[in-house]
Amino acid sequence: MSTSNRVAIQDLYPPDLAHCFGCGRNNPSGHHLKSFAEDGEVVTRFTPADHEISIPGFVYGGLLASLADCHAMATATFASQLAAGRRLGDGPAPRFVTAALRLDYLKPTPLGVELEIRGHVTERSEKKAVVAVTISAAGAITVRAEVVAVRLPKSMERV
Amino acid sequence: MSTSNRVAIQDLYPPDLAHCFGCGRNNPSGHHLKSFAEDGEVVTRFTPADHEISIPGFVYGGLLASLADCHAMATATFASQLAAGRRLGDGPAPRFVTAALRLDYLKPTPLGVELEIRGHVTERSEKKAVVAVTISAAGAITVRAEVVAVRLPKSMERV
Repeated sequence: MSTSNRVAIQDLYPPDLAHCFGCGRNNPSGHHLKSFAEDGEVVTRFTPADHEISIPGFVYGGLLASLADCHAMATATFASQLAAGRRLGDGPAPRFVTAALRLDYLKPTPLGVELEIRGHVTERSEKKAVVAVTISAAGAITVRAEVVAVRLPKSMERV
Repeated sequence: MSTSNRVAIQDLYPPDLAHCFGCGRNNPSGHHLKSFAEDGEVVTRFTPADHEISIPGFVYGGLLASLADCHAMATATFASQLAAGRRLGDGPAPRFVTAALRLDYLKPTPLGVELEIRGHVTERSEKKAVVAVTISAAGAITVRAEVVAVRLPKSMERV
């Protein structure tokens, strides 16, 4: 079975849980990151704005952390659906939140080019997933991240 | 000697290296985080905007990563100056950049309250510092971070 699917994973989050600044379709001020399943991995592309800068010429590390974080949550959602034998779009997608985020900035990430962010799950249980993420610019990996995602706890559901 | 000083550490960064989205005074679109030395620790306070949201009611984790990151760099700068026997404001402050960022989100961080972010250096050499950071909301620590800061490498200086 091909796991390719051109539905953005974040667009399947329940509408009351789709306000995230990084990836929520219901946040008019946010980044609207859209992650897609591509043959077993989850991929997104994002071009930082000129003001999302650290040192002149390079992307702000806080933005890179944000991108890795939101993309990892989408990757966890995808893996959870796949493990349940469901396709993306078969009912509401489970929402994950971040328990831990670990980033290594391997080299400076140049500003002014499209970044490619790839994620895959390295460990999972029903309630938790560990996601490996890379961020690449112009074909070189500049950031590696490991992100621990947990199913949204009831204590965070106010809606 | 008291180490208290009401000069914001980020305001001592060289002007050509003060464009960071998180804390640069020369970035009109940024957060303008200002970190202050307070008796051996470095402290800042920041109230996230309503749109800096993850799940309704809670702060966006990517923003928390950004705050920890910029604050850690300021903490590294402060420790570096102190170790050199200099006071903040005695000449330009050394600029650090992030090599690694590790965050544990201990509990959800509520939106709508001022956050307190505290940092101190746990290990340092001339070129590197390891910084422990906590983020607290309403008196409870919600995030712990460990950040590896390195002196700005020549390869990142384009100015």
